Amino acid sequence: MIDTWEEYRIFEDSLKKFVESVEATPKIKKGLAYAITAGGKRSRPVIVLLSAKLCGGDYADVMNLALSVELIHTASLVHDDVIDKAEKRRKREALHKKYDISLAIVLGDWLISKSVELTSKYGEEIIRDFSNVGMMMSEGEVLDIYSIKENFTEKDYFECIEKKTAALFAYSAKSACKIVCEDRIAADKLFDYGLNLGIAYQIVDDLLEYLRLLDDKHSVFESRTLPQIYEEKYGKEEGVNKVMEKISTFVERSLSSLEYFDESPEKEKLRKIVDFMTYDMIRNKAEKKAIF
Amino acid sequence: MIDTWEEYRIFEDSLKKFVESVEATPKIKKGLAYAITAGGKRSRPVIVLLSAKLCGGDYADVMNLALSVELIHTASLVHDDVIDKAEKRRKREALHKKYDISLAIVLGDWLISKSVELTSKYGEEIIRDFSNVGMMMSEGEVLDIYSIKENFTEKDYFECIEKKTAALFAYSAKSACKIVCEDRIAADKLFDYGLNLGIAYQIVDDLLEYLRLLDDKHSVFESRTLPQIYEEKYGKEEGVNKVMEKISTFVERSLSSLEYFDESPEKEKLRKIVDFMTYDMIRNKAEKKAIF
Repeated sequence: MIDTWEEYRIFEDSLKKFVESVEATPKIKKGLAYAITAGGKRSRPVIVLLSAKLCGGDYADVMNLALSVELIHTASLVHDDVIDKAEKRRKREALHKKYDISLAIVLGDWLISKSVELTSKYGEEIIRDFSNVGMMMSEGEVLDIYSIKENFTEKDYFECIEKKTAALFAYSAKSACKIVCEDRIAADKLFDYGLNLGIAYQIVDDLLEYLRLLDDKHSVFESRTLPQIYEEKYGKEEGVNKVMEKISTFVERSLSSLEYFDESPEKEKLRKIVDFMTYDMIRNKAEKKAIF
Repeated sequence: MIDTWEEYRIFEDSLKKFVESVEATPKIKKGLAYAITAGGKRSRPVIVLLSAKLCGGDYADVMNLALSVELIHTASLVHDDVIDKAEKRRKREALHKKYDISLAIVLGDWLISKSVELTSKYGEEIIRDFSNVGMMMSEGEVLDIYSIKENFTEKDYFECIEKKTAALFAYSAKSACKIVCEDRIAADKLFDYGLNLGIAYQIVDDLLEYLRLLDDKHSVFESRTLPQIYEEKYGKEEGVNKVMEKISTFVERSLSSLEYFDESPEKEKLRKIVDFMTYDMIRNKAEKKAIF
């Protein structure tokens, strides 16, 4: 489990110190603390720390990047929950329920700006990549919102999840590498690692929601996702099999991007994250409900 | 009027080309075009262009900055209208009414990220200043939202409008200077110019709303503003006089910051903007309703 790892603990410490040190109006500080302490796997910042070490750097070199990706991810969750009219997030009230929609919108904006500040020291390329990821996440969200209403194909689905989810994983791994070394091939390999991991993870998440194995989702909207598209095409059982095949494909692609790197504890952990965020997720949820 | 000026025309042309050239999902493009073509005075980008020229630079040096400040301003309007449950913006339906709240939230996020991209080429200091302005705008908005409910003093009011409105004017003028020259005093003077202009402008806006002279505001919330604070303290008529005195104070401060610079057509226009955004606004609205 990620939360027993050194990288997780170091990141949690930094995040706690960061939240305590933030100077902002009381409502923003309160909202920030609530949104951040909700927990979460911290998979993106842990990938940042591991990727940096894999490429010969230190955690300290990329801690601002790790904080930045966790913050923009949190911003997207806070705004998505308003859009989805979600009641809960990680077993607690969603922020806009605990406080109100106004604070949720403004806190999300504040978090995006704070992410920019944390990224500002890394130079033009990292900042431009960051802004592009921000735009992609917004575009992915738009595709997701309107996926219920419109003719939404398999191709649209993949465009949507690549932008909404996978782009930030790809940016996290690639940017950490770019910050600590000049190896452009390594950066591209880590981009592929994150992108394919993100795609696999989102398909898993959609599969678990389709199979009603998530405790946490109370969204009013039902996005059109791969399991539904495949059910219409192949029937329910065969559809789920095809979805599992797709997950395997992206898991394999993600893992094979790591072949470029020598064996190391960091590489091993990056591999484990892939398993943890895909097959482990399915196994855990399925065991609880005695399915599969 | 600003809209007869060369700077206005050049900015409008660049903005039009920018909107046409944007690559994004169709819903984002449509929302962007709607939000941008609603018009507006373009006072922030015009201040960017004039400040750059005042400091010996060209428009081209700062066009990305001009686009960036107009975009983040637009983002704040789109999100504020959701928060305020506003029906209209600039005599047209507010974006969340024309489309829906989801698109308004996501488009705002997209605009913030696009602003970051446009700013990325200007180096660490400009980007950090930009992120700080973004955070200040969010904090100012929070102060504004909760101003109805809580004990909101004159001091709170000034903190609110400085963050919500004036910070972006100050950033616009100062950053344009920093991009084109090394004169730190000039940068500080332009910061003061923008800050005091922004404060004066916001007080004018609040006064016009208090006197019910705005056609455009249909906000459900009634923020607590300076005219109300002064009415309670001094009575209505004396209160309005005191508000006018405050406007004069900040107008004078804004104008006096320009004394550092030699006379030039740009300096004259920067002066005219102050008049245009304060006394002219009051005169125009008052004439229409035959008040004053």
